[in-house]
Amino acid sequence: MKKLIDSPDTVVADALERMALAHPRTLRVDLDNRLVLRAEPKEQGKVALVSGGGSGHEPLHGGFVGHGMLDAAAAGEVFTSPVPDQIQAATAAVDRGAGVLYIVKNYTGDIMNFEMAAELADAESGTAVRTVITNDDVAVQDSTYTAGRRGVAGTALVEKIAGAAAEEGRSLDEVTEIAERVNARTRSMGLALTPVTVPANGKPSFELGEDEVEIGIGIHGEPGRRRETIAPASDLARTLLDPILEELPGEGPVLLLVNGMGATPLLELYVLARDASRILAEHGVEVSRHLVGNYVTSLDMAGASLTLLRLDEELTRLWDAPVHTPALRWDENDTKE
Amino acid sequence: MKKLIDSPDTVVADALERMALAHPRTLRVDLDNRLVLRAEPKEQGKVALVSGGGSGHEPLHGGFVGHGMLDAAAAGEVFTSPVPDQIQAATAAVDRGAGVLYIVKNYTGDIMNFEMAAELADAESGTAVRTVITNDDVAVQDSTYTAGRRGVAGTALVEKIAGAAAEEGRSLDEVTEIAERVNARTRSMGLALTPVTVPANGKPSFELGEDEVEIGIGIHGEPGRRRETIAPASDLARTLLDPILEELPGEGPVLLLVNGMGATPLLELYVLARDASRILAEHGVEVSRHLVGNYVTSLDMAGASLTLLRLDEELTRLWDAPVHTPALRWDENDTKE
Repeated sequence: MKKLIDSPDTVVADALERMALAHPRTLRVDLDNRLVLRAEPKEQGKVALVSGGGSGHEPLHGGFVGHGMLDAAAAGEVFTSPVPDQIQAATAAVDRGAGVLYIVKNYTGDIMNFEMAAELADAESGTAVRTVITNDDVAVQDSTYTAGRRGVAGTALVEKIAGAAAEEGRSLDEVTEIAERVNARTRSMGLALTPVTVPANGKPSFELGEDEVEIGIGIHGEPGRRRETIAPASDLARTLLDPILEELPGEGPVLLLVNGMGATPLLELYVLARDASRILAEHGVEVSRHLVGNYVTSLDMAGASLTLLRLDEELTRLWDAPVHTPALRWDENDTKE
Repeated sequence: MKKLIDSPDTVVADALERMALAHPRTLRVDLDNRLVLRAEPKEQGKVALVSGGGSGHEPLHGGFVGHGMLDAAAAGEVFTSPVPDQIQAATAAVDRGAGVLYIVKNYTGDIMNFEMAAELADAESGTAVRTVITNDDVAVQDSTYTAGRRGVAGTALVEKIAGAAAEEGRSLDEVTEIAERVNARTRSMGLALTPVTVPANGKPSFELGEDEVEIGIGIHGEPGRRRETIAPASDLARTLLDPILEELPGEGPVLLLVNGMGATPLLELYVLARDASRILAEHGVEVSRHLVGNYVTSLDMAGASLTLLRLDEELTRLWDAPVHTPALRWDENDTKE
């Protein structure tokens, strides 16, 4: 295994330590609890958003902490859920009296631990907690770590849009409804060109032949639907978009997220985005918002995922609202970018 | 070769086509000439900055076009210089009567073609052109494509700081002097964990053993100083920093750039940044500005480079000035991030 780390045992803490230094005006880090928190002082009356999960998907979730998005992110070990105590500490740190929304990817360990944290928070301080489970991955029904569908790149869209709603001063019920609506209108599917190597294991998570692509890959290297021979990006884009479009509810314009898995050059992501846009145009689907880059990754896996969110007027407005986090940042003049 | 592309022959044009779509308020793309240009209307009297080079180093250079940085970037084929006609077209498109500064990485092909473009621009329209050659890489003296030292990640710092000076309305001579000063005070060195595969070749550019690291790698996969066995990130950080510090001129605080080569997870870049910061602290070097991410890449190469820029008061102020490009973006409230 070749990785730029000091030890598999300390990799998460080592990275968090530096992240705080790199963004002193946006973030602060609680190293004991492995939390990324907003640097800015608490505002009373704002619903607080807490997310988290296994590390190895950076910038998700810590890179999405900041104005207009998350209030806290709890970092587990690589591909391992944070424990309830961490999540409870995050909850206590960001609770502003208006309640806390947990945004949790649909993996069995995460769901269990966030649920226990909610019970702890209620028992200790009576904090009102709601939870939204993301499950945007259309690739497989149940999977290695999941009952039901996996939560993947669409989670970043839920965090952005619910974060904008919270920033507007909406109530816990309203922010929860918006987060649920985004998840319900979002569908994703990914593919891998290479496996992922978890530092603590030191070996690739699976094997792929010289010319093989895993279609429907999970963000922990879990198996997808099938393997195919590598094909032009336009064919691969179609392979991902067909099942997404089949299941995408509603009518009208969409947001297209072209997400890199970590080891895919930006040049390739742009090519894939171009091909996906053309295919959507053929289907008469208007792409009114888009995002291209590495947002929900799987360490050193090469590959990409496509996500569509069926927008409505309110979701579009909330998407366009200013956001100021290490990984996602724009202001009111930047809409449509 | 497994890549998310449609054809090695069209990869650069395909990516540029989408880049324009993704950033309509910041950029426009001239597909015929393979140029990335600012979307905003010309301002008379501002010195224009033009850069460019082979593709495959994204976001360099096209991702650095926008307010506070470049006016145009000319994209060559992968790892191949743009031709003089492209560069001349860029020059004509952005000339605002105050002259044009070329920022060119020190590679023989680039230097020749930018020189010819400057002659063409002078002959056709009498445009005053100055050229700054970047050569921040301390790894090797001459190399595969270079007489003298290579221009690598430090180029992004030259583009940012010279861009801020141009935005302030400084003269061509002044902007040129500032760009030269940044280059003279910048030193870089990189390492690779894996080779790079150029689409048109279809094969890795070199071979590295299971446990080997190439120390002093070039951004096209050119050989470095030597090969070593993989070591903890802190040892590797020291290996890169020692020769950088030996050659870094001046006194006082530095900017630290931890740059990913394309396929290195953000988690690892943060670990490397933490280690580099600690080593610099041991040496009594204050890191007053920092940047961590993928800025000057080498397609799918795994690895990273470290760059130090010895700041002075003016360079710090220009670094902090607002910038609004796809890859680098902050406003006046974000200084020190």
